[in-house]
Amino acid sequence: MIEQICTALQAVRSERPLVHCITNYVTVNDVANILLALGASPIMADDEAEVAEITSMASALVLNIGTLNARTIPAMIQAGQCANQKGIPVILDPVGAGASTLRRETTKRILAEVNVSIVRGNLSEIAFVAGLNSAVKGVDVGEEQHEAQEVAKLAAQKIQGIAAITGAVDVISDGSRLVCLQNGHPMLARVTGTGCMSTALVAAYAAQTDALTAAVGGILSMGIAGELAYQATGAIGTGRFHLALIDAISRLDKDTLRERARLTCR
Amino acid sequence: MIEQICTALQAVRSERPLVHCITNYVTVNDVANILLALGASPIMADDEAEVAEITSMASALVLNIGTLNARTIPAMIQAGQCANQKGIPVILDPVGAGASTLRRETTKRILAEVNVSIVRGNLSEIAFVAGLNSAVKGVDVGEEQHEAQEVAKLAAQKIQGIAAITGAVDVISDGSRLVCLQNGHPMLARVTGTGCMSTALVAAYAAQTDALTAAVGGILSMGIAGELAYQATGAIGTGRFHLALIDAISRLDKDTLRERARLTCR
Amino acid sequence: MIEQICTALQAVRSERPLVHCITNYVTVNDVANILLALGASPIMADDEAEVAEITSMASALVLNIGTLNARTIPAMIQAGQCANQKGIPVILDPVGAGASTLRRETTKRILAEVNVSIVRGNLSEIAFVAGLNSAVKGVDVGEEQHEAQEVAKLAAQKIQGIAAITGAVDVISDGSRLVCLQNGHPMLARVTGTGCMSTALVAAYAAQTDALTAAVGGILSMGIAGELAYQATGAIGTGRFHLALIDAISRLDKDTLRERARLTCR
Repeated sequence: MIEQICTALQAVRSERPLVHCITNYVTVNDVANILLALGASPIMADDEAEVAEITSMASALVLNIGTLNARTIPAMIQAGQCANQKGIPVILDPVGAGASTLRRETTKRILAEVNVSIVRGNLSEIAFVAGLNSAVKGVDVGEEQHEAQEVAKLAAQKIQGIAAITGAVDVISDGSRLVCLQNGHPMLARVTGTGCMSTALVAAYAAQTDALTAAVGGILSMGIAGELAYQATGAIGTGRFHLALIDAISRLDKDTLRERARLTCR
Repeated sequence: MIEQICTALQAVRSERPLVHCITNYVTVNDVANILLALGASPIMADDEAEVAEITSMASALVLNIGTLNARTIPAMIQAGQCANQKGIPVILDPVGAGASTLRRETTKRILAEVNVSIVRGNLSEIAFVAGLNSAVKGVDVGEEQHEAQEVAKLAAQKIQGIAAITGAVDVISDGSRLVCLQNGHPMLARVTGTGCMSTALVAAYAAQTDALTAAVGGILSMGIAGELAYQATGAIGTGRFHLALIDAISRLDKDTLRERARLTCR
Repeated sequence: MIEQICTALQAVRSERPLVHCITNYVTVNDVANILLALGASPIMADDEAEVAEITSMASALVLNIGTLNARTIPAMIQAGQCANQKGIPVILDPVGAGASTLRRETTKRILAEVNVSIVRGNLSEIAFVAGLNSAVKGVDVGEEQHEAQEVAKLAAQKIQGIAAITGAVDVISDGSRLVCLQNGHPMLARVTGTGCMSTALVAAYAAQTDALTAAVGGILSMGIAGELAYQATGAIGTGRFHLALIDAISRLDKDTLRERARLTCR
């Protein structure tokens, strides 16, 4: 799998796929910059009057429901359906699904009206996608990881696509296979938008390879960036760590992917 | 007071209070990152359909009227009233109050319909809250500081809460007592969002301590961060100074607070 | 011309002109910070209920159509007409003009209802402004540069103002004269918002000097910042390059402008 990811990285760098993002205003600048750092071309557009046209030029679509509002929900549906017609992958980030009725209903509506290729979130967000009401039962890390594997499988089966749960260990499933990633750094949780950025990286890879490879590739890239950013900035603080993440993605290469990946498939 | 601030900082770090922010899109990323750097958990949500639910999970609410629009004003009122019912503190940042009728009317409406615990702004913004029409009469620093003290007292009495004026010297009042802070650095005025970030820090502290301590703690933290950021980046420029602010908050500890605080109470 | 730019830079630093920006939410923080770094005062406001009041206090107005939406289009028209009545310059950044009907129609509508002093974009955006349907015919750099010169002249004649095309070589025209700039660095294309930031810098200069000098001054400043940022950060990555741009603008001085400018007029 790592070789497929390396090939996809090279393809992103040479093809510069256009990734249309309907995303939250908190982390949108980071999402654009991480896409550029990987080699993709971001385009942000969220008005109903133009999303179909923009999606029709793109190679992947990101739907991120952070800072959702009444105006952008129909735009997301329309862009998603346009992506389906065109046959480009739709990547959903159900930020805070479960935190409010609006987010729950919107997640359900997107999943009902759009074929989503990949969903990426934390354990409780993906548990909601899987149709589970109360997700986190695990009390120790081992239990939580076991639960994440079950939840990822269920969610993937539910959407008939790929489900990715990011956490201390990342778990990605296509409904039968499981990939676990041990990369990353605890500092990633101290910067806003590392989840949104992972989702965007997944979308850029998805423009160039199959959905499972893309999900693993995007999340692996972010995990490795976390390690390299910590190596570069250490205890300086979360501000410079944040920028060093983007630096690391802009310098990411195949050798780094191969040397650092801590990936198990089964 | 400094010991209460130290205790509150520790509480923010251990409790990770959820701070709901309805804030402007210019500085929202910095606001989220500074909250994470302090140890709090930011959540941004501004749609009427979900703000009450989000506020009901939170430990403090920030209302920031920069980039105000017709859609978010009723959401602010609704979230504020929900916070009042739940008994969590509401922190208002009347960005540019006085610059437009919309901002004046919205500030008035929030103050009329929501019990605001703490208001933080510059002299002219807080003068507007105090009901004064033309604020800045002072011609030298001494006069301006005297005026700020009077305005802070009046505004605090008006809202029956805490008023904080940030400037060369910061002045915080509960309507009778006055706290003056001499921390900070002129570079803070050359980066957008340092006011918004101060307000967010005040909210995080307010989730864990009384409103006066919180207002002083948040503004003191930002002032010290400004000093440390300048120490770290010097004449390199405002870009790196900006990030170094977030670095400094992420490393802030009790000893730094105790050693650096230049605070007078009366 | 370089001496006029130096004089304008000094005027921005001393006058701190207020620049009203109705701009996209992707790069708005960078736009505010680059304006502060140059010495100007940014104000962002996009609601119809306040834009006229805000524009009436400002010394220049930026209209940037990235992340356009139904709510902000009438606000742009209103602000633009207010700027015209007041006699302050309007600077248009037609981001992605040509990418969607919404952006095409909005660009046309702004140009029909508002007197735009300066338009800045890439070759295809300015070609659209010039009324050309398919812009980029050039196959080599020489041809593309020749085409850019023709397109800039045409667009400037069309709007009876200044047209600026940024690219490997930047071309600025008032409809008869042409200024070519060879400053800049390829890394500028790997960070989002460098175009939006250039437009904002142009607006800050336009508050203090004539439109042609302002367009050249703003774009030259960004080009030099790109060179200095690369000098400071080299191969570290796009994250730190991004911040170093703002650092460079915050330290920009006359000597640097004079030494580095690679400008030809005819």
